[in-house]
Amino acid sequence: ADSFEVAGRRFTSRLLVGTGKYKDFEETARALEASGAEIVTVAVRRVNVTDPSQPMLVDYVDPKRYTYLPNTAGCFTAEDAVRTLRLAREAGGWDLVKLEVLGDTKTLYPNMTETLAAAETLIAEGFKVMVYCSDDPIMAKRLEDMGCVAIMPLGSLIGSGLGILNPVTIRLIKESVSVPVLVDAGVGAASDAAVAMELGCDGVLLNTAIAGAKDPIAMARAMKLAVEAGRLSYLAGRIGRKQYADPSSPLAGLI
Amino acid sequence: ADSFEVAGRRFTSRLLVGTGKYKDFEETARALEASGAEIVTVAVRRVNVTDPSQPMLVDYVDPKRYTYLPNTAGCFTAEDAVRTLRLAREAGGWDLVKLEVLGDTKTLYPNMTETLAAAETLIAEGFKVMVYCSDDPIMAKRLEDMGCVAIMPLGSLIGSGLGILNPVTIRLIKESVSVPVLVDAGVGAASDAAVAMELGCDGVLLNTAIAGAKDPIAMARAMKLAVEAGRLSYLAGRIGRKQYADPSSPLAGLI
Amino acid sequence: ADSFEVAGRRFTSRLLVGTGKYKDFEETARALEASGAEIVTVAVRRVNVTDPSQPMLVDYVDPKRYTYLPNTAGCFTAEDAVRTLRLAREAGGWDLVKLEVLGDTKTLYPNMTETLAAAETLIAEGFKVMVYCSDDPIMAKRLEDMGCVAIMPLGSLIGSGLGILNPVTIRLIKESVSVPVLVDAGVGAASDAAVAMELGCDGVLLNTAIAGAKDPIAMARAMKLAVEAGRLSYLAGRIGRKQYADPSSPLAGLI
Amino acid sequence: ADSFEVAGRRFTSRLLVGTGKYKDFEETARALEASGAEIVTVAVRRVNVTDPSQPMLVDYVDPKRYTYLPNTAGCFTAEDAVRTLRLAREAGGWDLVKLEVLGDTKTLYPNMTETLAAAETLIAEGFKVMVYCSDDPIMAKRLEDMGCVAIMPLGSLIGSGLGILNPVTIRLIKESVSVPVLVDAGVGAASDAAVAMELGCDGVLLNTAIAGAKDPIAMARAMKLAVEAGRLSYLAGRIGRKQYADPSSPLAGLI
Repeated sequence: ADSFEVAGRRFTSRLLVGTGKYKDFEETARALEASGAEIVTVAVRRVNVTDPSQPMLVDYVDPKRYTYLPNTAGCFTAEDAVRTLRLAREAGGWDLVKLEVLGDTKTLYPNMTETLAAAETLIAEGFKVMVYCSDDPIMAKRLEDMGCVAIMPLGSLIGSGLGILNPVTIRLIKESVSVPVLVDAGVGAASDAAVAMELGCDGVLLNTAIAGAKDPIAMARAMKLAVEAGRLSYLAGRIGRKQYADPSSPLAGLI
Repeated sequence: ADSFEVAGRRFTSRLLVGTGKYKDFEETARALEASGAEIVTVAVRRVNVTDPSQPMLVDYVDPKRYTYLPNTAGCFTAEDAVRTLRLAREAGGWDLVKLEVLGDTKTLYPNMTETLAAAETLIAEGFKVMVYCSDDPIMAKRLEDMGCVAIMPLGSLIGSGLGILNPVTIRLIKESVSVPVLVDAGVGAASDAAVAMELGCDGVLLNTAIAGAKDPIAMARAMKLAVEAGRLSYLAGRIGRKQYADPSSPLAGLI
Repeated sequence: ADSFEVAGRRFTSRLLVGTGKYKDFEETARALEASGAEIVTVAVRRVNVTDPSQPMLVDYVDPKRYTYLPNTAGCFTAEDAVRTLRLAREAGGWDLVKLEVLGDTKTLYPNMTETLAAAETLIAEGFKVMVYCSDDPIMAKRLEDMGCVAIMPLGSLIGSGLGILNPVTIRLIKESVSVPVLVDAGVGAASDAAVAMELGCDGVLLNTAIAGAKDPIAMARAMKLAVEAGRLSYLAGRIGRKQYADPSSPLAGLI
Repeated sequence: ADSFEVAGRRFTSRLLVGTGKYKDFEETARALEASGAEIVTVAVRRVNVTDPSQPMLVDYVDPKRYTYLPNTAGCFTAEDAVRTLRLAREAGGWDLVKLEVLGDTKTLYPNMTETLAAAETLIAEGFKVMVYCSDDPIMAKRLEDMGCVAIMPLGSLIGSGLGILNPVTIRLIKESVSVPVLVDAGVGAASDAAVAMELGCDGVLLNTAIAGAKDPIAMARAMKLAVEAGRLSYLAGRIGRKQYADPSSPLAGLI
């Protein structure tokens, strides 16, 4: 079956989802179930993963079933991101992580200078780094050369729902690196996720598009289907785009 | 379960597919199976539905399982279209039909004047007319007022694979009529089908996108999933489009 | 110099503008001046062209300098449009007219059935009909065959400012008819007007984009320049679109 | 009159053009004249600016009339770019320069790591650096903070003619920096240049779009007009985008 590999682990689902922004952990769990995701990101600075007196994500989202991917949401410096992931590793043993170092609160656009610095430190310390980044194909190649295990360019701003604004750069990134490319951020509707997959990407990560929908559970299932549809469409080899019509074959009929 | 009704018949699958342009009837049958379609269009002027000495579509695509929708592909006048469907009704008893009267061979754009004339005659003769038409919302309303049972505007030229070029008019058509609106023509990849459904349409009809793909069976499944994904995405209520980022909720974390 | 001909009259400016929606006739006059337009549309049902006790458009916009093009704005039936233009001809002697028969007040989309009927009557009565229409290339050809002297498809809904939503159909119309094609409705910014011209159209008609801008006079000049820019860009023959970069010529330098 | 300032010098024309890829220096001169440009880029590694026995650009393009902007076209490392501009300064005294450090020959996408390094060195050595860069708003802010005098993000790949693929990031860059923002690379037709200006940019730099057009002189003039049109359109304050129609004001008419 179609699958992809990150840092030596193989996954069948190409939809990765976040665990934040839901009403409660129960809704989170149901959305994850509906999404079919095998990898879920956890904002370790925001989510309770250690205090048993409070509701804990692990009681709703079984770490044996889902691959937890600690992320550095809310970190604006390399130092902060590195510290966050070190603490996460101490707390939960995770070494497969998602690095994101943000540039400012208005755009949440990645700060690539800080991201490079953090990635270098983390890789040296043995982390397997999946990295949120700009859609810059040269930067993507550099991140791969440094040892990042997945490249995760934004489609558009986090939570914006604007979809894949620049399909050319996403495709160039896919052409230039060998590790998996996952579009991270920007997906609003199912078609956006399909577009990402049709560009040849290995997967899609999203959070707001599901958690912020009127019916998150239904949207989680929509995204699952859309990622599968887009992947299959890519593999099936779409027809070319034509300026004029292409009639059905002119077989002689009987009527 | 989510379903839609045309001319008093209820269907669960919102993907309608054509039966032309395949290598042979066996491939047609496998693509239809993969698509999950319940309604299939048949170009009665092109496909053998009556001569038992030749391979017959009915031997591969069971009319008890699939709703056959005879169409008028290749007709450029109202007269021709009407005659074709009369013969089809005589041959197979079909009265639920898809009318398409084309403007020219270069674009296969509908000739709306001839289409109106043909629809009037056919409806008077008791046909249930699903009608291929331009994406003109006023014309769509008129076709509904005449008694057409489904409005089928083109997304872009037949076989062009350019997707939904004008989402505004498609949405206006959906707002202006009560009968089902099915996007017919133009879909190239899975995401295009999802977009059609996210606009609120009741279904999508396509042929070339599947039959012309490198792997038609895989593409048929991609389209099935895409239509389901787009429909669910529409029903789930997508997030708004924002100019700036929308960070995850700022819950205090423990790290 | 580059020019185009409508109904035997030759014009150098390819920007046609409306005279409605301005603060007062003085602003109208200044905007027209800045636009460089030679043809201006006049909503004869709305604008005072006959009562000398009230401010009159003709006192601000000299009919000797500008070609007045009476239009049927606000008409929703062929009968109403025909009556309006007959009265206009009686009042001002105009026989070069712009026909628009609208489908409803919400979209102002053209009602093509009524438009065809009105065009037939008007042409039989000797009017030179420039016709607002849908972006349907078959319909456009029919209007030309009936004797319309210019085809004026909408780019998007009147006043919507959404630009040219479907460049494919506009280009098909230009390919299918011999009379001038002028994009009418939908232009929001200067680039939209340039796009229309780059598709090969003969001109652009707009009103809201200028009259509704914060500074109508500046926008009128912007539109003038944009139409000229788009026309020149079309004539100059643009470079092709490429998937990858195209470096400057690799001449050996001296440094 | 509307103008902008770079490194203490004030310019009226917002169109900057390259001098490469023309048939000969005479065509270059005529295109520059038609473009109205005041600043022209010179690929000092490719163009003869020093050997009087060969045709020299300075004999056709007067450095007293045009501001020469030496660039580092063809440089793939910071070291190479810095050396090139040092030699240019020695040769011609230029200290206002355009830095571009490219990532690879296939995409000519900027290598931002090398670009940052080169910018730092050049600024320390007293150069006024206008910098070709990715459309990353955080990186753009950093380049300004380092002392770059103009930010020049790509609209799409050099020579691709695909226009402004991501208007959101270009607008974010304009919002985040105070120095001039000039879209550099990607413009194909006049409308693309207008779009760049309508986003609020201070100017546009292009080369292939003019030099590669069938008629470079006509295209140069088209681009001049398009930049002026887009600038005026931006300043004039365009109408909003609407989902539905916006009819002209319902003044009572006389007919």
